[in-house]
Parts: sequence; C-alpha cells; structure tokens
Amino acid sequence: MKCKKCSNQAVIHLRAHNVAFCKEHFIEFFEKRVQKAINDFKMFQKEDKILVAVSSGKDSSAVLYALKKLGYNVEGLFLKMGRHTNAAERVVKSLQESIGVPINIYDTTQHFHGLGTSEIASIVRRPVCSICGIVRRYWMNRFAVENGFSVLVTGHNLDDEATFLFGNILNWQVEYFARQWPVLEKTHEKFVRKAKPLIYVTERETYAYVFLNNIPFMEQKCPFAKGATSSNYKKYLNLIESEQPGAKHRLLFGYFDNLRDIVYKEQKIELKECSVCGFPTTEEKCQYCRLEERVENSFKIGFDNSENGGIAGAKDDESKKEA
Amino acid sequence: MKCKKCSNQAVIHLRAHNVAFCKEHFIEFFEKRVQKAINDFKMFQKEDKILVAVSSGKDSSAVLYALKKLGYNVEGLFLKMGRHTNAAERVVKSLQESIGVPINIYDTTQHFHGLGTSEIASIVRRPVCSICGIVRRYWMNRFAVENGFSVLVTGHNLDDEATFLFGNILNWQVEYFARQWPVLEKTHEKFVRKAKPLIYVTERETYAYVFLNNIPFMEQKCPFAKGATSSNYKKYLNLIESEQPGAKHRLLFGYFDNLRDIVYKEQKIELKECSVCGFPTTEEKCQYCRLEERVENSFKIGFDNSENGGIAGAKDDESKKEA
Repeated sequence: MKCKKCSNQAVIHLRAHNVAFCKEHFIEFFEKRVQKAINDFKMFQKEDKILVAVSSGKDSSAVLYALKKLGYNVEGLFLKMGRHTNAAERVVKSLQESIGVPINIYDTTQHFHGLGTSEIASIVRRPVCSICGIVRRYWMNRFAVENGFSVLVTGHNLDDEATFLFGNILNWQVEYFARQWPVLEKTHEKFVRKAKPLIYVTERETYAYVFLNNIPFMEQKCPFAKGATSSNYKKYLNLIESEQPGAKHRLLFGYFDNLRDIVYKEQKIELKECSVCGFPTTEEKCQYCRLEERVENSFKIGFDNSENGGIAGAKDDESKKEA
Repeated sequence: MKCKKCSNQAVIHLRAHNVAFCKEHFIEFFEKRVQKAINDFKMFQKEDKILVAVSSGKDSSAVLYALKKLGYNVEGLFLKMGRHTNAAERVVKSLQESIGVPINIYDTTQHFHGLGTSEIASIVRRPVCSICGIVRRYWMNRFAVENGFSVLVTGHNLDDEATFLFGNILNWQVEYFARQWPVLEKTHEKFVRKAKPLIYVTERETYAYVFLNNIPFMEQKCPFAKGATSSNYKKYLNLIESEQPGAKHRLLFGYFDNLRDIVYKEQKIELKECSVCGFPTTEEKCQYCRLEERVENSFKIGFDNSENGGIAGAKDDESKKEA
C-alpha cells in the first residue's frame, strides 16, 4: 500500500479515513488532526499557558509532544501518588529530557502521611480507582490554578471518549453527559478550562505516533485498572468500528452534542467554595478535603488502637496487593 | 436448579431476574410479563378488537397464543407476499387450527399483477426488506382500519427493540426515536393504535414459551434478512447482556423515555391524506401508492418493450434468486 501524499511505502492504513500514509505524512496527518480539534472546539491559543497532565502513558506523552511541536506554550504535571507510580516517574523524567519540555512533579502523598492511593483506598474501604480519581482531579486543577495555567490538557483520545459515552448510554447515566466534551469551560475562578486535543485520533493512531517519533512512554497499564468494565465496552466498540469504520466518531460527534445541551440545560449546578480549602464544590466541604479528613481521623484512631492492628494492619494488606 | 415457586426441577434460568422456573411456572411468569406490559403501557383492554400481525415466526405465534389465553379478543392477519411466503402460510394455517384463533389471510400480490416483494424490489431497484416494509406496514394498518380493529399487535420482543435502539444510537438516527415505543397512539382516524406486548420478554424466553406450549412456528428466518447489520448489533448486545444481566432492559427503559419525549417535541409531523388511497401520509401521495404506480408503469413499459426483455427479464432474475 502506498502513501496517499507521496506514493512511498505506507506504514499505516486508516480505514475510517480510507487513506494510507508513510511515516512522515502520518505524523503530519496526526498533528493536523490535533490542530483541527484545538480549532474546532476553541480549546486554547498560542498565548495560553497550558498544563498537560502527564502519566507516562502513550496518550499524555503524545499530546505533550504534539502540542510542543505545534508551537504551544506547554508544561507537564506528573503526580506521584504512591510506590506504584515510581516506574512511571522514571519514564516521565526521560520524556522531559527527550522532548525538552519542563514536567512538574508533585507528590500527593505528602497530604496523607506519605500514604499512596491504594493504602488510602484500603483505609476508607473504597475502590482504588475512585480514590485515585478524587486525588488526581483535585491536584491537577489546584496545581494549574495556583501556578497560573489557563488550561489543563489531558490525553483522552477518541476511543476513550467514545467508550465512556457508550457505557453511559447503555446505562443511561445522563448525569455524566453534560461534562463529557472535548473542552470544558471554566465555571468558577478556581477552576481551569479543560481540553482534550486527542479527541479526533484513535488509540491505534496514538500508538503509531509515539512509536514513529520515539517518544518515551510506559507500555504497562495501571496495575489497579485490570478487569474494568470499560475494557469490555472498548472491545465491543472496536468490533463495531471494524465492521463500520468511523462508528466511534459518529457516536461521539453525531446527535450527542444536541443531547448534551438538552441534559445540560436540565442540570443547574451551583458551586460553593469548600469550607476547608476554598476550591469549588457542590457541597459544604469538598470530596477531596473529606477524604483527607477521613485518613487523618484513621491515623488518630490508629495510634489510639495501635496494639490491635489499627491502621497499620490496613497498610500491610494493601502492600501485599501491590507486591 | 429448582423452580423458585414450587421447588420442582427448573427448565429455565433467567439471569436478568435471578430466578429459575419449572415449565408450569415459567409459562405463568411469561404471561404475567405480557400482562404487565399491556397494563404498564395501557396497550388495550378486554373490549378492544385486536389484530395480531402473524408471520409464522416464534414471536408473533407466541403473542397470538398468549393474548388468546389471557382472554383478549384477538384475530390474526397473515400477508401472502409472494412465493417465498408459501411455507409460512402452511405453518400459519396449522397455528390457527392448533390454538383456535381466526387468522385472516390477505394476498398483497393482487395489487402488483401477482408479483411478490422480491420481484417488485427488482423492478424498482431497491432492497427487498425496504419493499417488504412498505407493503407490510401499509396493508397491516389498512386491513385493521377497514375491518374494525382498534389495535394492531406485533411480536417485537425486548431483544428486537433494544437492538433497534442500540443501532439507532450508534448512528444517532434520532428521527426513529419518537416512533420507537411499546405503544404508539393513533394519530389519525385512518391509523390504528400499535402495541408490542412482548416488550418485557427476551427472544430466549419467547423461544422457551413456544417450545413448552407446542405452539406451531417456523424456525427458518426470512431468506432475505441474512447478513443484516442488525444481527451484529444483536450479537454485541447479547455479549453485554451476558456480562451484565438486565442490560437490554436498562437500555430500553432507562432515560430513553425522556429522550424520546424531547425528540418527539422537536418533531412536528403533519399528516395529510394520500391523493390516491386516502390513507395518512406526510406527502401528497403515500409511499405505498407511489410503489404501486411505479410497478404499474414498469408493466406498461414492459409491454411496450416486450421484445427487448423489459419487465419479464427482471422477473426471471428474481425467480432465480428465490429458487
């Protein structure tokens, strides 16, 4: 198969677009798709100070690289969230060296007596992914606000977003519809705008982009994400896409925009400021501060009951799981 | 596994309901589900004169049997639509004898010079399923109206309806949303109300019901329905259902009702009466009358050009496909 642009040997065939490209022209295609998403959804401009949430995975590494190459003013942010992020941190450091973009490293465990998300999850008896989400969303936004960034960029691609929508429709979780969009405007002075510039590219295209550019990334998925229902939804959506190329794009960019507007109009969310940290929340005290407080209280109880195991026991259980 | 009601050996396990039943109690369960659908959606009452569209398939045979048993005033209607429906007609006659419900047989080919749907499709160069749909919907409604029936019942089950919705969402064909519901009210004096009493039972449950009751039905699918996209959607939805029992029901009876209302409000359909037949349509001449006219014109051209093959050629082509 030949490249559509130069007739050299193609390295990738994109069925949804019915084209094939050589390395050089695929990279050009990918970056044009990223630029198109930025323009179509008015995500940000050259003057914006952009913070990219970096995990060491292919998506966030690709978006950081592409935005730098497209001439945007970007920095990265990596959150250290416990021992399980040590390997990712090493990859992120090599990413910084390799592409010459500053990547801030912020350690969230300092707010939890040095505990990582899996240990916190064990204390409060909730799924690790839920705890990780609360801590990550909170610090990504707070770091951006406190350091003068106007936009927070994440590496969500077309597959991620279409899969998320697919699952939410199957269960009609319409409360998530309003917030699922390539760009989310700032709704409070202590929120930054959020944007997903990879919304027009697939997982496969992003893989190809990081490989062809030798961008450092970590192949291994998060050890806590195994067996998530969303992986099955992704599988079914891939089957549908293979029979009907473009199906993911149609699902995400068809009537859903109208539907989102309708649902959004129905939802009137009033934001207050958290009584502890001052960041926006719908309740008196934000979810993150309540989590910090619960861990703090467990520590107090833990010291009181240290002879009966207390919190130390919980910590040991989790470290076994992590090993 | 034991029956939930009597502890005898169960014949079927229903994961979505987390119960198992013996033959007797499964039949009772099935009929209760049918009655619940009739009540929940105010489909019809004992006084209504109900016409059941009968195809010889398991679904329409099951609904005819169940409605008769539940004490409703029912008759069947079978449409002869060409040679390919001959085998089905024999099954329908044995169904009539077996359950003692009158089944009207109406031959639609009389309006097309004796041609069946596949031959008509060949003349007008459109898919057979599309022609069959036009002819079937038209005569089902017209027969009901002209013979004093107040409701037309079809055998669509939960799988059919959930699959249809699934496909329409994946492609956001919202124009179909408004008309997809277990009961459709009469919107014109020459339309009858339409109802789907099997909306709460699955394909598998309907199979079990016809087998356990020895209801005559034809196993073979319509020869023209092979390879339809909807069969793949059904496959994916079955995979999702097997992982998350109840998924089909949630898809169909979750937020979709609200969404349907919203879309419905946006769609204002004005009905006129067809200038040829007087039945309701959105255009000057209804789709069915235009089809009759095209076939009629082809016949005229066919006679004019009979030496060059004309319509006779088209007929021969189709009869080969049917053989």
